Amino acid sequence: MNAINLANKFSLFDEHWSPKIIGELNDSHVKLAKLQGEFIWHHHDDEDELFLVVKGRLLMKFRDKDEWVNEGEFIIVPKSVEHKPVAEEEVHLVLIEPKTTTNTGSEKDSERSKEAEWL
Amino acid sequence: MNAINLANKFSLFDEHWSPKIIGELNDSHVKLAKLQGEFIWHHHDDEDELFLVVKGRLLMKFRDKDEWVNEGEFIIVPKSVEHKPVAEEEVHLVLIEPKTTTNTGSEKDSERSKEAEWL
Repeated sequence: MNAINLANKFSLFDEHWSPKIIGELNDSHVKLAKLQGEFIWHHHDDEDELFLVVKGRLLMKFRDKDEWVNEGEFIIVPKSVEHKPVAEEEVHLVLIEPKTTTNTGSEKDSERSKEAEWL
Repeated sequence: MNAINLANKFSLFDEHWSPKIIGELNDSHVKLAKLQGEFIWHHHDDEDELFLVVKGRLLMKFRDKDEWVNEGEFIIVPKSVEHKPVAEEEVHLVLIEPKTTTNTGSEKDSERSKEAEWL
């Protein structure tokens, strides 16, 4: 039951598209991620995901629209909805999602799929 | 699936100790709260709670220690752990907790207990 400082935790890694676990509550993990460039289209069969932008500007692409998420904003992507995160410049994110959630969801991608580890 | 701006949502209410729901994911709600002064000692039998401070400095009192949570920091209070939030100056919080969570948890307090409503 200690306070967790987001900036301190972000300073501990540089890797892009590789979420790090920094907390757990109920059936969910709190993760940090740094993004740059384009991710792949994917969805999660059973898990809603929250993306809170703490630095930069995230473009969340959906099949029917694009949504910009600025610093100090979040977006919730419901289960089963296809999405593709894009970060033209580096984005720092807090993610909240069930412990079962993998970064590429429905898609298995040898380069992109990563098991999240505790930071 | 729209971006939600935290500052905009905080501007919509002034009330203290009355969490407002601004999102839902899986079995949880995302809430905003403004705190000032001292809350009551309470716990939640089955729910972990996340408190992310976006303005001010929260003092989270536990029976065996005090923990300060500054802007840009969060703390997770596990189920069953007694806690008492204190805000010497106004604090703005993002809360993430199960939909079943009430603000006073185990304690029924006619003045303090509030049903959270969507903002």
